[in-house]
Amino acid sequence: MATILISDRLVKPNKRNVVAVQTLKVNAGVSEQSSDILAAEEPLEISVAGNVDGEDFSRTIAITMRTPGNDEELALGFLFCEGIISGIAEIDNVLVKDCNYVCLSLRAGVRVDQELFERHSFVNSSCGVCGKKSIDFVLSRLSPAALQANSINSTPVPNSVLPVDSTPMRISGTLISKLPDCLRKRQDAFESTGGSHAAALFDFSGQLLAVQEDVGRHNALDKLIGSRLKLGKLPLRDTILLLSGRASFELIQKAACAEIPIVVSIGAPSSLAVELALNCGITLIGFVREKRFNVYAAEHRIHLE
Amino acid sequence: MATILISDRLVKPNKRNVVAVQTLKVNAGVSEQSSDILAAEEPLEISVAGNVDGEDFSRTIAITMRTPGNDEELALGFLFCEGIISGIAEIDNVLVKDCNYVCLSLRAGVRVDQELFERHSFVNSSCGVCGKKSIDFVLSRLSPAALQANSINSTPVPNSVLPVDSTPMRISGTLISKLPDCLRKRQDAFESTGGSHAAALFDFSGQLLAVQEDVGRHNALDKLIGSRLKLGKLPLRDTILLLSGRASFELIQKAACAEIPIVVSIGAPSSLAVELALNCGITLIGFVREKRFNVYAAEHRIHLE
Repeated sequence: MATILISDRLVKPNKRNVVAVQTLKVNAGVSEQSSDILAAEEPLEISVAGNVDGEDFSRTIAITMRTPGNDEELALGFLFCEGIISGIAEIDNVLVKDCNYVCLSLRAGVRVDQELFERHSFVNSSCGVCGKKSIDFVLSRLSPAALQANSINSTPVPNSVLPVDSTPMRISGTLISKLPDCLRKRQDAFESTGGSHAAALFDFSGQLLAVQEDVGRHNALDKLIGSRLKLGKLPLRDTILLLSGRASFELIQKAACAEIPIVVSIGAPSSLAVELALNCGITLIGFVREKRFNVYAAEHRIHLE
Repeated sequence: MATILISDRLVKPNKRNVVAVQTLKVNAGVSEQSSDILAAEEPLEISVAGNVDGEDFSRTIAITMRTPGNDEELALGFLFCEGIISGIAEIDNVLVKDCNYVCLSLRAGVRVDQELFERHSFVNSSCGVCGKKSIDFVLSRLSPAALQANSINSTPVPNSVLPVDSTPMRISGTLISKLPDCLRKRQDAFESTGGSHAAALFDFSGQLLAVQEDVGRHNALDKLIGSRLKLGKLPLRDTILLLSGRASFELIQKAACAEIPIVVSIGAPSSLAVELALNCGITLIGFVREKRFNVYAAEHRIHLE
């Protein structure tokens, strides 16, 4: 089973923006253990504090899934573009702590447009602050049945050998390589615009069950899951999800909610997507290119011919 | 000047997911008026209504920029994945109205986890409901100086002739074609992971001023704008913004806030990105591939050799 090197995550000690993971690289049915460098993804909580008319205030404005680094700049740019601050002169100081929290303190007397401020208020921020908490939050949302369904057969297997048996929860490497072509044939808007993302659902024989497209990756997956919910088809325990682009934490989170056991992304996964997949027992495959792909988690559901 | 065919926007009458726009296609210095099909992008307001203990409630949960179509499925999937509903049996009926509003009514007595519910509440939704309102909202946020700076020279020009003069607000087609290579040389995380987006700022001579990368496109641009804000360099009136991926409404909105006059995206723009660029007088260029690119708005800032 692929194991994330979370303790050795920094490729270079002074770099927080990439993470090294172990991966199983498959090429034309031949697999080898290898390592891969992924873009780091972690939540950042952005807060604003100040004092107006002698009253202190402090508020969480946003929690964004971002690549660590330049967090102060991210907070400044976000608050400026949202119209909450109008320039650097309004900032008294910037507090960055615990890796995933940044608070901008406004100079005494600087007032914030209440309407803009309210729009971005998070009453609750239990999903934020660190990747571990985010994962715990997702896991707490999943039913015991979902966790059990996904963890079947998830016992570690020897590094260089993939288990081969005939349980219905397995798919072949050949099938994985065929999925992107099946999607392309049905991806109407993408063909004409080059500007849409798609999420597609397949059964274990490779038959396309549903496809949805959207300018937003999250929306495409929400539409896909919503369409199955509407038909009374949830949970989606016997399906494969194909993502036309990259796999982020939030996409794996949605897959976990719908109890999808296998996620295949044509693009790269983020570090937190891999962590969540490992924690939920979701098989996560990325970089599918012709007969090649990488497996980042729960490889026991794949057999190679 | 490129004009969006907003009244004839539907390529096929029964398709809401693509929009036809006029574009100026440039190839090795030769330009021609053409048309292009873009992925449609519009805001959707998602609301939940119900009745618990005889009390009616109704609340906007999210406003998402999405491609129109399957809005009911999008709302169902979003609310399910956020844990606000646990199945279709909790839904009494779904109201879709005004193209950009969907409200899920819960069966009488269905309770919503207050903590989850509160997290997603929008106190104010003035940015939502329709693309026109979104654009008005952005325009209302921009200073008169910003609007004036961007609208200089924005009078329409004959279709087949690009104005050639020597105002400093112009850049050459050759320069545009060189930008992606300049970015690639500096895009560290992307090179190693294939999973990051980048936003880069150039001056009008093509010199790279700053670059930021992130798993999220919005974050990369927020970091870029925040880094210039921190240095006291805003507004960014003499700069070109290069986006490594696609250009969505929200990215053009951020560019407008920072008063960036020219946005070049390596990928496709969305329909609403083009509309906003036209409204703000921002030069919007997409699909930059070697010596080819498409101009979607304010082409008066480009001269071809």
